[in-house]
Amino acid sequence: MDIKPQATPELRRLAELVAAIEIAMLVTAEPDGALRSRPLRTLQIDSEGALWFMTTISSPKIGEIDEHRRVSLSYMHPASERFVWASGVTQILRDEAKARELWTPGLRPWLPDGRDDPEAVLLKVTIEEAEYWERGHGEVIPLTAAARELHNVRIKSPRAPRESH
Amino acid sequence: MDIKPQATPELRRLAELVAAIEIAMLVTAEPDGALRSRPLRTLQIDSEGALWFMTTISSPKIGEIDEHRRVSLSYMHPASERFVWASGVTQILRDEAKARELWTPGLRPWLPDGRDDPEAVLLKVTIEEAEYWERGHGEVIPLTAAARELHNVRIKSPRAPRESH
Repeated sequence: MDIKPQATPELRRLAELVAAIEIAMLVTAEPDGALRSRPLRTLQIDSEGALWFMTTISSPKIGEIDEHRRVSLSYMHPASERFVWASGVTQILRDEAKARELWTPGLRPWLPDGRDDPEAVLLKVTIEEAEYWERGHGEVIPLTAAARELHNVRIKSPRAPRESH
Repeated sequence: MDIKPQATPELRRLAELVAAIEIAMLVTAEPDGALRSRPLRTLQIDSEGALWFMTTISSPKIGEIDEHRRVSLSYMHPASERFVWASGVTQILRDEAKARELWTPGLRPWLPDGRDDPEAVLLKVTIEEAEYWERGHGEVIPLTAAARELHNVRIKSPRAPRESH
């Protein structure tokens, strides 16, 4: 996965964790209040910290996401006790140059005609807020240890339009 | 983690996946629409498929959850390509007998006085709907393969008060 330079050490570490775990659970709120999630491969973290995905325009999640919807992303690697949460706003785009940049053969099961598949759309999530939990480097601690012992970093994007509370 | 007998093969498999991954990302919707998540250790799946957790009454997530709130749980094991989503309704309980049953020393960092800590509360999530994705047994396929190739099972709890759509 491709990581562009990140503005702060916290965002760089967030990008590294996301790149290592790669597959997100993308969470959307449905009209009836249910919070649905499904796995989705992360393709890039750009220099502004936005996360990029590629999917098909007819997939149900696109109906659930729409444009400018608030979504969240969870990344977990239980064996190494690394957990990431990011909250952001979606954009659904068609952009040939960006699709070429992001394309990877691993996407072919969804998009048999490749990045030029008429079904292909880009999903961009601009992060508003994020948090991650991990062990200090080099420690080996069994999985039964508790999340309270994990190093916890909370990030507010400088571009976030709202205050934390 | 403790798994009680499950009513159907799908619920049994769901319970096995949850027990193997153990740590959930618990997702709640905040009043401003943000979807927040944080890691939480699963302690039991009871015979009715409800998931049990233990936490402290003063933790922020309890404020965010309240009673009877819709939450979702994501479990991921990227290395084995297993992903679980469950949506349900919360109850926050104090129950000495149940706390004794669920207690594990791994909870001590949060609850230094053990299961009788006055801060301890039980969080029960009654599943309304769930879905899981996994490889067929015995296959060894690299992580770069796509989620579309995964075996996908969707579950509606017989107790679910609403229809899928």
